[in-house]
Amino acid sequence: MSIAAANRECLKRLNESTATLVDVRKAVDVIPGMTDRSVFHAGPPVTWERMCGPMKGAIAGACLFEGWVETLAEAEPLAGSGALHFDSLHNHRACGPMSGITTPSMMVNVIRNDVHRIETYCNLYEGIGKVLRHGANTPDVLERLRWMNTELAALLKAAIHRSGGIDIKNIVAQAVQMGDEMHNRNKASNSLLTLALAPHLVAVAKSPEDAVRAINFIDGSGHFILNSVMPSCKAMLDAGAGIPDSTIVTTIARNGTEVGIRVSGTGGQWFTAPAPKIEGVYFPGFGPDDANPDIGDSAITETMGLGSCAMAAAPAIVQYVGGTPQKAVETTLRSYEITAGEHDTFKIPALNFRGTPLGIDIRKVVETGFTPVINTGIACRRPGVGQIGAGITAVPMECFEKALEAFAADRSKAVSPA
Amino acid sequence: MSIAAANRECLKRLNESTATLVDVRKAVDVIPGMTDRSVFHAGPPVTWERMCGPMKGAIAGACLFEGWVETLAEAEPLAGSGALHFDSLHNHRACGPMSGITTPSMMVNVIRNDVHRIETYCNLYEGIGKVLRHGANTPDVLERLRWMNTELAALLKAAIHRSGGIDIKNIVAQAVQMGDEMHNRNKASNSLLTLALAPHLVAVAKSPEDAVRAINFIDGSGHFILNSVMPSCKAMLDAGAGIPDSTIVTTIARNGTEVGIRVSGTGGQWFTAPAPKIEGVYFPGFGPDDANPDIGDSAITETMGLGSCAMAAAPAIVQYVGGTPQKAVETTLRSYEITAGEHDTFKIPALNFRGTPLGIDIRKVVETGFTPVINTGIACRRPGVGQIGAGITAVPMECFEKALEAFAADRSKAVSPA
Repeated sequence: MSIAAANRECLKRLNESTATLVDVRKAVDVIPGMTDRSVFHAGPPVTWERMCGPMKGAIAGACLFEGWVETLAEAEPLAGSGALHFDSLHNHRACGPMSGITTPSMMVNVIRNDVHRIETYCNLYEGIGKVLRHGANTPDVLERLRWMNTELAALLKAAIHRSGGIDIKNIVAQAVQMGDEMHNRNKASNSLLTLALAPHLVAVAKSPEDAVRAINFIDGSGHFILNSVMPSCKAMLDAGAGIPDSTIVTTIARNGTEVGIRVSGTGGQWFTAPAPKIEGVYFPGFGPDDANPDIGDSAITETMGLGSCAMAAAPAIVQYVGGTPQKAVETTLRSYEITAGEHDTFKIPALNFRGTPLGIDIRKVVETGFTPVINTGIACRRPGVGQIGAGITAVPMECFEKALEAFAADRSKAVSPA
Repeated sequence: MSIAAANRECLKRLNESTATLVDVRKAVDVIPGMTDRSVFHAGPPVTWERMCGPMKGAIAGACLFEGWVETLAEAEPLAGSGALHFDSLHNHRACGPMSGITTPSMMVNVIRNDVHRIETYCNLYEGIGKVLRHGANTPDVLERLRWMNTELAALLKAAIHRSGGIDIKNIVAQAVQMGDEMHNRNKASNSLLTLALAPHLVAVAKSPEDAVRAINFIDGSGHFILNSVMPSCKAMLDAGAGIPDSTIVTTIARNGTEVGIRVSGTGGQWFTAPAPKIEGVYFPGFGPDDANPDIGDSAITETMGLGSCAMAAAPAIVQYVGGTPQKAVETTLRSYEITAGEHDTFKIPALNFRGTPLGIDIRKVVETGFTPVINTGIACRRPGVGQIGAGITAVPMECFEKALEAFAADRSKAVSPA
């Protein structure tokens, strides 16, 4: 197949894919390849020794949460002992924001792409501030996780079942016309998700108080939907993965040490580079010296043409990540230079309803010298602190150069005589 | 006082005003000057004989609703008998969408401008399609009104009390950054209102079913918040009314026969012209011949610099009212040419967070020859049908010319020797 035909097929699959929140399940029961000692993390695979501070902090908290240790002090020796099974979430149909740490007993959102019969998974959104995904692991963090994993998860599960499934793709399409870009601005989409769930939460809750607590948590956390949008993007992108001659990027993910990409035509292979720093707006009392390099699977939104690629739809986001509304528009316009097509359903009103950029083509990235921009939260490099700001970075060119080399080598093998 | 100083004072009052939904009350108990035979309507005052079809249809429905007649056939003779007290809502601190018909036993939203100690009133939003405000008066329309006036109103009242008041100004400020212009696009603001009310509705409802029915009605009607936003705009604009030397418009309102404006410096005096036709997008089966001329008090949003004046914030609205996103931006930019200032709190991200145009100055309208644009629903000219489309029109220049003449005459009297 020609590269152009392969990329057309990939775009077709990305566009026709659906994404519906259908369930909340226990991670070990649904995530393929997860064992009772698995610790899956954001970004490309990384060994314990090379993990960044926030990821180590989150793992220590998860060890306590799972009951594998009784004190935080025991967690590091356990993690370094080889007794835990570390791997990238993306290698297991899953993803997670920031450190992404997902362990067997954590409850996860289940997203279904019905057109391509793909299921993906992501843990539940904890809110902002001191949270496990940023490496915080104090008793209050664990207590919130336990409430989320029991009461909230049970309520959500029942509400989602009663709803017949929440159409996340439809919410994204609406929210892109309401000022969201779906990575760091989720004000509209989170409201729409809360409204979609609220009547069902009220109906299934044992008491009005339980329903109100859940509604307030989902609404108040502001980005609760992110942990459904990320696996939705993954469910659509996984449908486009593994097309032998396609040069379209199907994963961008960071583990805080390295950033890695995967490309449709080269399947599960990761192409990595050191994780970059983030140009950002810091919370009071913090600065660039406190910042961990880029971390988290949330760049799956950019991989799907949302996030920074759709910033023209969300000019108000510059109040959070810095820059100007004009720069937001320019970021989207530049993204079209490195994508193979446009989304059929996600339309940007301010660009005369042009579809969001879709299908980052590694050839175009290398040719233009423009790599995908990512807008993102900034984690403190020290474990246990949490988020300290938000800003903008870019995927290193090294990832795309490596990917293009490997793609070209595969292709020359495929066409050369046996 | 100089005109410039008077207009600065007016702008200051508009900007500093608040607007909070504090209660739901029976119209006759709160609307000043309302008697048990009052029928208050949208737009400038108009006699029964000169009223348009939709307004007559709504009045017939209201006569049934109030129990003043037993059949629709009896309504016209009663209305023509002189036994009913017709007047403009705007003459009584109230307003209403489309025909606006508000009668004594109807429940109304109560909005409070705490800075200027002003209370304003507006009936409850009925949803779209066949509704009283468009002149529909069939049994299903009246049944819905009765449910709204009893169960829904009681639930809303209790929920609003429990909330301590819903800050409508704050919701408007957020929604203008989420693609709403607050007249015909209220997707974000209505979601935010529903979310603000939902926990309280759940808490006060006698059963989960009652809460869910109310939440679904408020969320599902899409524009429920309009009937809080309109009196909010009025509560802010009334604070700017009656400043002797100010040339700022404080009311724009249409009754389907005439459009009228009022100006701060000329107080309660109306300056009218024939209601214009609307350039619009029609629902299937309807066309311009079916359309009633411009009707409703919802142009109070444009008077406050929202609606069409803020269309740059809401490019997606062109799917509903026609035109292009570029035209939407131009409409806002042109509005700045006829306004005295900008809003301090309502900011348009796409225009680099410029405040919405504020304070339409009759001198600038006459000088530039550009009159305020209004985006609006289109009512069928025949009673009982309802909405048949949506589109864009403009306030006739005649209103502004008359107002400027009267303003100049007043001023020359004021400065001439006794």
